[in-house]
This record gives sequence, structure tokens and C-alpha cells, in this order.
Amino acid sequence: MSKPLILITNDDGIHAPGLRTLIALMRQLGDVLVVAPDKPMSGMGHAVTITSPLRVHKLAEELGYTEYSCSGTPADCVKLGQKAILGRNPDLIVSGINHGSNSSVNVIYSGTMAAVLEGAMENIPAIGFSLNDYTYTADFSKCGPYIHSIVRNVLQTGLPSYTCLNVNIPAVNGSPIKGIRIARQAMAYWDEKFDHRKDPHQRDYFWLTGVFRNREEEEDTDEWALRNNYVSVVPVHFDLTSHKTIPLLREWETGSLD
Amino acid sequence: MSKPLILITNDDGIHAPGLRTLIALMRQLGDVLVVAPDKPMSGMGHAVTITSPLRVHKLAEELGYTEYSCSGTPADCVKLGQKAILGRNPDLIVSGINHGSNSSVNVIYSGTMAAVLEGAMENIPAIGFSLNDYTYTADFSKCGPYIHSIVRNVLQTGLPSYTCLNVNIPAVNGSPIKGIRIARQAMAYWDEKFDHRKDPHQRDYFWLTGVFRNREEEEDTDEWALRNNYVSVVPVHFDLTSHKTIPLLREWETGSLD
Repeated sequence: MSKPLILITNDDGIHAPGLRTLIALMRQLGDVLVVAPDKPMSGMGHAVTITSPLRVHKLAEELGYTEYSCSGTPADCVKLGQKAILGRNPDLIVSGINHGSNSSVNVIYSGTMAAVLEGAMENIPAIGFSLNDYTYTADFSKCGPYIHSIVRNVLQTGLPSYTCLNVNIPAVNGSPIKGIRIARQAMAYWDEKFDHRKDPHQRDYFWLTGVFRNREEEEDTDEWALRNNYVSVVPVHFDLTSHKTIPLLREWETGSLD
Repeated sequence: MSKPLILITNDDGIHAPGLRTLIALMRQLGDVLVVAPDKPMSGMGHAVTITSPLRVHKLAEELGYTEYSCSGTPADCVKLGQKAILGRNPDLIVSGINHGSNSSVNVIYSGTMAAVLEGAMENIPAIGFSLNDYTYTADFSKCGPYIHSIVRNVLQTGLPSYTCLNVNIPAVNGSPIKGIRIARQAMAYWDEKFDHRKDPHQRDYFWLTGVFRNREEEEDTDEWALRNNYVSVVPVHFDLTSHKTIPLLREWETGSLD
């Protein structure tokens, strides 16, 4: 059997240690194409670049391994890697390892997961990996066996159509990771404040700050898994319809009001 | 009863005709605070500004109506309007009227809908409006009765918790709008190509181009509604979990692999 072709990106940028870890892990499993942002793109959500062109630079090439930096967002990197560089679908798209959690509602803001959702929309198996540690010097050394386990399962059995995975890895600081849990996205929110300051010209400016607040403690959530030192795996789709709400709104339908 | 307080934003920027239309319509229903991006933010998805501060400028103020431009994204505008300017929850958040469709999977890329999802995450009723016409000179004149009908329903009966609405209005070019349909997000995708060019210095650059392709024709979808000259109303939530996939992946759970 030929080696699987794995497209790798991230949102912390091409030089991030989390990406380097993921590249090393994926090279043990297949041929690798890296297309990653040339600068950090955290918090970019599902931004795509439509009002300016994209630049791409080849940084490395050897048998089964090519690496490009790209001026665009993580979603741009996947589109460009698949449609301009490869010209075919990769067997797998992986994104990360993000420096910081993408659990719960963070999936909405996540550039890492935007890249993965691009895969789901194209019906290509795709997985986002995040470590629950925001620092540049985060310890990725424990991630390997869990990432390999999940990726091997996906390569062997695939994923349901138009579905991807959001994998978060706890920062355990020496204690053991207890294993892998399949979970749902916990209901949580960001309790945000703006730090209001004056610049040297006495003009106002505002810094966004926030504290993550979990709204639920249930054992089937990703937040529970992470707090209990499990790797959380949430299957993710891109149908944002609240199907149960549809019948409740039927009476709002009208005929022409022209 | 006191007037409802309505927070308005968009992603085409503070000067967009679609925003001006929405402001005029909302001023007929309540007190209005406008906080909108100072430049176009189309395709920004759910980007938030965390690595630079936000600037805000008051552009207009009179009884029951205040307007600010903001250097941030649509999501930033909602956070800032609610948490730094109002210091309380508005009764309603509306976003738009977007110049162009946010139906189907476009919800994922949409700055208009990112602002609305901010409302849902805070459990504030929120509605995004989009007209299926990308041009600056789009004709918003038919939107009024439909927007008023939907907003009045939301103000009177509210929305289910943590749920918002994605409203798309067909560009009918003279023929009548047939009415309002409650719908689900259609399965569709962008069939994208990159236009590969050389700059005057013979360096490569790439423009993203794409054609929207619908994968289904069912009458309960937003795409069907729009193609048949109905306004589509999709109830939207921010739980991206594919719940039906969870049991299928249970066998991927492990104990510690450390």
C-alpha cells in the first residue's frame, strides 16, 4: 500500500514548535506537505483572503516531504495546498498542534479548526490538535502516542462524511494522561472585559481581555475530559442549523409582504 | 413599555448602504446603538482582535441613536458595543444587511454571522440579514417588511436559548418576494480555483476564486427558499458537535498511552 499523503497546517505560524512536533509525528506515518501561515494567525476564526493575493514560499523539499509558508490564513493554506500545490485531495489534513485550547466554544474562533473544517467541507478526513498550554515553550512530548492512535484510526477506518475531529490534549505537568475520550463540545463562554487606556496623544484605545467560563460539568463534555487529564476527541460538522428550533418558528412563515 | 435597545453591526463597514438600510428600519422599532467596522471586513469569519488594541470613534449621537466606527472585526464590534460602550445587554443584536448571501455553508465564513453568534453565545437574541446581491448598489427597498416581520416576532416572543437567526433575502429584480420560509442550512460547497500570476518582479502570487455549488435541492433548505424567491430564516446554534458520530467512535477510546 502506498503511503498516505498528509497535508499539515496550523494557526500559530510556520515556525511554531507545535507545528514542528506535528510534522515529525506525521512523517512517521506518511508523505507530508506542509503549508502553514508565515506569521501567527491565532484568533483568525474562519477568515479567508479574498481582497488580496496570496504569496507562497517553498522552504524545504525532500523525498516525501515539502514545506511552504503562505501569507494567508489557515483556511487559505488548506485551500491553496489542496487546489494550487497538490491539485488533488490529500488522504488526511491535520492542523496544529495549537499552542492553547480549542475545546468547547473556542472551536468557533479557532484558525486551527477552520483549516480542519475546510477538510470536512471537501469531505477529506481532517483533524485539529491543540495542547492546553498557550506558551511558546509548551511541552509537546506527551502528545505523540495519542496523536498517532487517533491518526491511525482515521487513516484505517476514515470518518463519517463531512465530519472532522477536534482533539484537545491536556497540559498535565508531569502527571499521566489518562487516555482518550470521545466527547461533545461543552457549553461555555468567554467572560470578557475591555481594558480602556489612553495613548500618549490622549486618545482612547481598548484591549480585549477575557476569562473562559464553563457552563456545565457533565462527564460527556470535552471540558470534563480535559480537566480530568483525558485527551478529548469531539466529532465536528459544519451544519449550524438548530434543527429542533425549526418547528418552533413555523408560525413566523408568511406569504408575500410586498 | 420602554423601547427595546438594538445593537447594530455589519461586516461591509460603517458606510455600507446595507447597514444604512438596517439602521433606518431598526430606528422605527427601538433605540439604536451602531458599532460597525471602519472598513470592509467581508470574509473575516469569526476573527477577533487579540494582538492589537481597538480604536473607536463616535460618529453620531442623538436621542435614542448613537453610532460608532471601530477598527475591529464584526465580532469585536459586538463585544465592544455590549461590554465597553453599553455595559449591559442590548435587547437585540442585528447584523447586516450584508451585500451578498450568507446562506448554506457561507455562515462559516461570514463576519455578519460571527457578530450574530456572539449574541447567541451571550444568550442575547440576534439576527443576521443578508441580501443575495454582492453589489454596492444592491436594491434593499424590498427588505423592509420582511425584516420588520422577523424582528417583531423576535422582540415579542424571543428565541430559544443560545440560538440566533440567519436570514437571507433573495435578490428578485422586480418580481415579488413570495414570503418567509423557516429552513435548514443546505449542504453546499465552494468549488475553488487559484488564479496563478507573476508580479512585475516575476514572483508568483495567487488569487482565490470560487463558484458556489449546492449539493441538494430539498424544499426545506435555505437554498431552495432563495431560489424560489422566499426569504430564508435558518435558526443557528454554535454547537458544532456531530452528536450522531459520537457512538461510532467509542472504540477509539483508550486508557493511558504514556
